[in-house]
Amino acid sequence: MSSVIDALRRAIGAAQVLDARAAAERASSYWDPSPLQARALVRPRSTAEVSSVLRICHAYDQKVVTHGGLTGCVEGATSDADTVVLSLERMQAIEDIDPIGRTATVQAGVVLQRLQEAVREHGLIFPLDLGARGSCTIGGNVATNAGGINVIRYGMMRTRVLGLEAVLADGTVLSSMNHMLKNNAGYDLKQLFIGSEGTLGVVTRVVVRLEEATQSRNSAMVGLASFAHVTGLLKRLQQRLGGTLSAFEAMWGDYFRDVTEPGFHRAPLGRDHAYYVILEAEGADAETDTPRFIAVMERALDEGLIADAVIPQSEAERRALWEIRENFQPLYRRQPIFLYDVSLPIREMETYVAEVQARLKRRWPASRCDVIGHIGDGNLHFFVHPGSSGDDLHAQADEDVYTPLAPIGGSISAEHGIGTEKRRHLGISRTRAEIALMRTLKRTLDPKNLLNPGKVL
Amino acid sequence: MSSVIDALRRAIGAAQVLDARAAAERASSYWDPSPLQARALVRPRSTAEVSSVLRICHAYDQKVVTHGGLTGCVEGATSDADTVVLSLERMQAIEDIDPIGRTATVQAGVVLQRLQEAVREHGLIFPLDLGARGSCTIGGNVATNAGGINVIRYGMMRTRVLGLEAVLADGTVLSSMNHMLKNNAGYDLKQLFIGSEGTLGVVTRVVVRLEEATQSRNSAMVGLASFAHVTGLLKRLQQRLGGTLSAFEAMWGDYFRDVTEPGFHRAPLGRDHAYYVILEAEGADAETDTPRFIAVMERALDEGLIADAVIPQSEAERRALWEIRENFQPLYRRQPIFLYDVSLPIREMETYVAEVQARLKRRWPASRCDVIGHIGDGNLHFFVHPGSSGDDLHAQADEDVYTPLAPIGGSISAEHGIGTEKRRHLGISRTRAEIALMRTLKRTLDPKNLLNPGKVL
Repeated sequence: MSSVIDALRRAIGAAQVLDARAAAERASSYWDPSPLQARALVRPRSTAEVSSVLRICHAYDQKVVTHGGLTGCVEGATSDADTVVLSLERMQAIEDIDPIGRTATVQAGVVLQRLQEAVREHGLIFPLDLGARGSCTIGGNVATNAGGINVIRYGMMRTRVLGLEAVLADGTVLSSMNHMLKNNAGYDLKQLFIGSEGTLGVVTRVVVRLEEATQSRNSAMVGLASFAHVTGLLKRLQQRLGGTLSAFEAMWGDYFRDVTEPGFHRAPLGRDHAYYVILEAEGADAETDTPRFIAVMERALDEGLIADAVIPQSEAERRALWEIRENFQPLYRRQPIFLYDVSLPIREMETYVAEVQARLKRRWPASRCDVIGHIGDGNLHFFVHPGSSGDDLHAQADEDVYTPLAPIGGSISAEHGIGTEKRRHLGISRTRAEIALMRTLKRTLDPKNLLNPGKVL
Repeated sequence: MSSVIDALRRAIGAAQVLDARAAAERASSYWDPSPLQARALVRPRSTAEVSSVLRICHAYDQKVVTHGGLTGCVEGATSDADTVVLSLERMQAIEDIDPIGRTATVQAGVVLQRLQEAVREHGLIFPLDLGARGSCTIGGNVATNAGGINVIRYGMMRTRVLGLEAVLADGTVLSSMNHMLKNNAGYDLKQLFIGSEGTLGVVTRVVVRLEEATQSRNSAMVGLASFAHVTGLLKRLQQRLGGTLSAFEAMWGDYFRDVTEPGFHRAPLGRDHAYYVILEAEGADAETDTPRFIAVMERALDEGLIADAVIPQSEAERRALWEIRENFQPLYRRQPIFLYDVSLPIREMETYVAEVQARLKRRWPASRCDVIGHIGDGNLHFFVHPGSSGDDLHAQADEDVYTPLAPIGGSISAEHGIGTEKRRHLGISRTRAEIALMRTLKRTLDPKNLLNPGKVL
């Protein structure tokens, strides 16, 4: 059984191969402190070494789980004692930043925040941003098609990836390091590896698209009377702010009240609004952007679209507003609590949320269900606290949240992916023909089922 | 041999099946007036009928070529007397326009311009735009991943497609009619059908992403002294116009001079600049956008980035500027002339163009090579006139244009696709491993090689 490890040591050097005991000194993930289970953990330093690792594992029928920053939310990188873990931690080079073409070429192990900071020095931004920025890697962002807080303006990771290099299950290196916005020379193979959660290949290098840095930022938090006001405001802002709207984060009233109870966040607005929204616009010209933003907000107030508004007067005040949205630790005082990440057409949202809440109340009269969302992206997050005890609470909550998605074409995963956690629910969002084709693709690219087995499908 | 036609008639009705003689009353394509060759031409009216057609053709090992608007530039829909042509001309319904979610759901046969006009009535735009707008179809735009003049701001067709329905070679209906910006529930199967030129399935319905209509438009044509000035101007505009830049179309000086010779277009600027650019910005607020645009232009003049500029004072003047870029009929007075569509990193462009022109001059001292491009997208179009006679002129021009792309990671097709015309050059832009994987995908999805055979691969 150790011969695969011997072969790996010979191929990439003993220092790059940790045994099971050394691997167990690591945590299983950002969320799970239990010892990492693995037959070995390998740390290749180049695409060629990744290719060697996969060629050897293929020859030995050895399953492989790839590690990026391990911050994923759906148990998408779990392993067991028979697994070879392939960590990209030694592939952290930022190989090139092109300020003219506005691209960066990076190895997959580069941490998101490091790339964000590196391109800043060139007056550019890499606009993908999410809470895990300090740990997650570009390779992981690609493998999970990461979303985050700037999707409304800049799109998900898929729209950021111009080219990539991946290693297939048998060790074949597939280099598609395109740098251009336009390239229709044959099938766009990189799409296979974006969002397939490490099941079709291991991403080793990536060419990403950058943007010019913005020069101004205007923020506000507003209170609104109804969901129609929320969607109405979103539409008006998108009409009137000319593409500069960069964030529009909605909170249902219960969420806001829950996290601003005495002892938690300070409420910057009255606590009795039906909905709250944090919005931001980023533009090219501080001098004219701010008056325009204020004028747009005043007009929305005059029109009755928003009931009340607060505009932060300092970065500290701005951060305090964002804390209300991003730091939901206060909710976790009630345990257990289950987090959901769904998407659905915006016009279905109000009815859908009401139905989920009604289902949960029928099941558990003392349950709580707090809701926030990237409304513009069709993405809602639920925090479900059953307020009850029993077995299978999580599975029952799943049923209440997911079942009403099917008839409205909703998705059980907006941005987190499927991993292990949502696998058995995939049929709610995808047809039998779709799942059959996914299996066909998996069988075609990884016939021995060695890459991240048991995830997604 | 007629049994497949009988089966098709029985399945979808005789009125939906034209025989070879009736098919021959049609032109082969927008560019080729010769009679269309086909065993039959079928016009299914629904996805179910497309499925019936493909199921029957699959059973009879009958090859199928799908017709959209037939405006493609790379012989991507050619057929012969043994082909069943599947035209989507009877699937032209705009099924739904959602002003809140900003999506449109359409059948594949809808003509681009009709969709553009329909969403306008809702204060929305479908921003994909190209010269063929009055003939090309949404299905064809998907199958070829169409580009056009707004890519710099709104992306190619791939970024517009949220969901689609396709029928596989064996008649299986694959419905992935997602409406959300975010959906990470399993593999993103729609990507397989976007840009694969009808070789992996027939797209029947599409959900596309719309944008709010803009309220202002500012245009200019400028003359510049060097290519560094062109890229410098592009960068400054992207920094200073805050995401409102919607077009940046460059013309090499020779092109400009060629199309503004006496008797052709009127030159609105001196004819001795090294480069010319038409640029446009579209924003949300006419009142403040225009002064900002003027200020940005004046600053670029002061900085010496641009040598001269003209700002149109009416829609007629604006159209006249665009005619210089879009109506290159004057070039066609010299025959033969070969049109190219390549992409490459922007920082390589100046050297690459000089090299292509030098190669052509060495081969044919009297040759002309005019160049225009969507610079921001990395996309150049060449018009090559050999100025010489002989066999294989086109193949020799191909060699001079394509060969220097390989070392710089350029693409032989930015937006036109591969079709039949560029098939033998695919290896210049894609590696052996990539082409092998493309073949694997083709074999997996269409094992009998029935869908648009001989295209792309």
